[in-house]
Amino acid sequence: KFMIFRQLFDYETYTYTYLIGDEKTKEAVLIDSVYEQAERDYKLVTELGLDVKYLLETHVHADHITGVSRLKEFFPEAKSVVSRFGGADCTDKPVDEGDEIRIGEISIKVLSTPGHTNGCVSYSVGSMVFSGDALFIRGSGRTDFQQGSSEKLYDSVINKLFKLPDETIVYPGHDYKGMHYSTIGEEKKFNPRFAGKSKEEFIEIMNNLKLPNPKKIHEAVPANLQCGKV
Amino acid sequence: KFMIFRQLFDYETYTYTYLIGDEKTKEAVLIDSVYEQAERDYKLVTELGLDVKYLLETHVHADHITGVSRLKEFFPEAKSVVSRFGGADCTDKPVDEGDEIRIGEISIKVLSTPGHTNGCVSYSVGSMVFSGDALFIRGSGRTDFQQGSSEKLYDSVINKLFKLPDETIVYPGHDYKGMHYSTIGEEKKFNPRFAGKSKEEFIEIMNNLKLPNPKKIHEAVPANLQCGKV
Repeated sequence: KFMIFRQLFDYETYTYTYLIGDEKTKEAVLIDSVYEQAERDYKLVTELGLDVKYLLETHVHADHITGVSRLKEFFPEAKSVVSRFGGADCTDKPVDEGDEIRIGEISIKVLSTPGHTNGCVSYSVGSMVFSGDALFIRGSGRTDFQQGSSEKLYDSVINKLFKLPDETIVYPGHDYKGMHYSTIGEEKKFNPRFAGKSKEEFIEIMNNLKLPNPKKIHEAVPANLQCGKV
Repeated sequence: KFMIFRQLFDYETYTYTYLIGDEKTKEAVLIDSVYEQAERDYKLVTELGLDVKYLLETHVHADHITGVSRLKEFFPEAKSVVSRFGGADCTDKPVDEGDEIRIGEISIKVLSTPGHTNGCVSYSVGSMVFSGDALFIRGSGRTDFQQGSSEKLYDSVINKLFKLPDETIVYPGHDYKGMHYSTIGEEKKFNPRFAGKSKEEFIEIMNNLKLPNPKKIHEAVPANLQCGKV
């Protein structure tokens, strides 16, 4: 009961943003904020009496521009956090496997989960994991741009995320069907890309997706490499 | 740890559906299901090993068709539940203030909260309240059709929902900004329609909204009066 937690949603890009706050110290982090939602997030954080210390990214996004640069105007002390392999040299705190972010009593552990991009991390907080675009509910992130690798993604999910306890709640970076969260146990059983699938079968599935590029990729990637400056 | 809980979302009508299940008996209810999402909901319920006993409605909706009739095909034992003042004579279990629905260890209490329609109820479960279209996050349901009454809605919110403990989590029937839930304490402080507003001021706000009719009103209301048969 010492944690304030909110899942927020951007309707245009189907992106989840997460707010985690420490009830006592009033310190907070936002994970995967969205440019267009900076005012909404600022308003909510302020109403809850919180102050953002860290702006965490699970990766350099291709489908939306991060809210980091805009939120830093509202929270000048906030430090941006992204994988050291993401290529965003603008970041205040490059992180990798085993690193820890602390706000009050809350420990946020960095898990390296590359595959969707080479610089993807997940964040583990108590019995929750924020899996970004590595693991989705009954799906996964794509692997066909930004140094994506189906092989690496399979390893990240099977050998890292699926090693978390079954009851761990999975909070993904996106969902397109209106499912807000899942559990590791559920995904191990029901995720059609991983359940009972070999690495070869997963690579085959990913090779056959043939998705169109994200609409905003040519704005979003360059902007996000500059921490959301446009 | 005996409750399975999921919030689900319909992107077309911005409707939240809620799944509540008892971990031990595997009995479950769905609150405010959506016609187009019946397969999704059935799949999730089944994967979680649950069986739906009750299909609860907070009211007869004007903006979407309920999933009740379609979900009854998947769960033939399920009983539909709606306010006795909603006008849906098709319902298996008309309810009113003080009634209780039980699944396993979980008690769902009916609160009469008219105003958006004459037959609106909220459902109180432990420290959560499912407020339907009475109380929204920083807003409220509209009151300009289906026997809507701003006066009644003000009383429902101020004298009933706002009497719940401040830490009660508010799960609304809709949200249009990507905020998934709130608390009674937050809404008492920050809801612009109620915080510091007299009944007269609230009525004035509601009179000036001048919203267009919901797109689906002419299909949805007749279908929902038949428990979602189309």
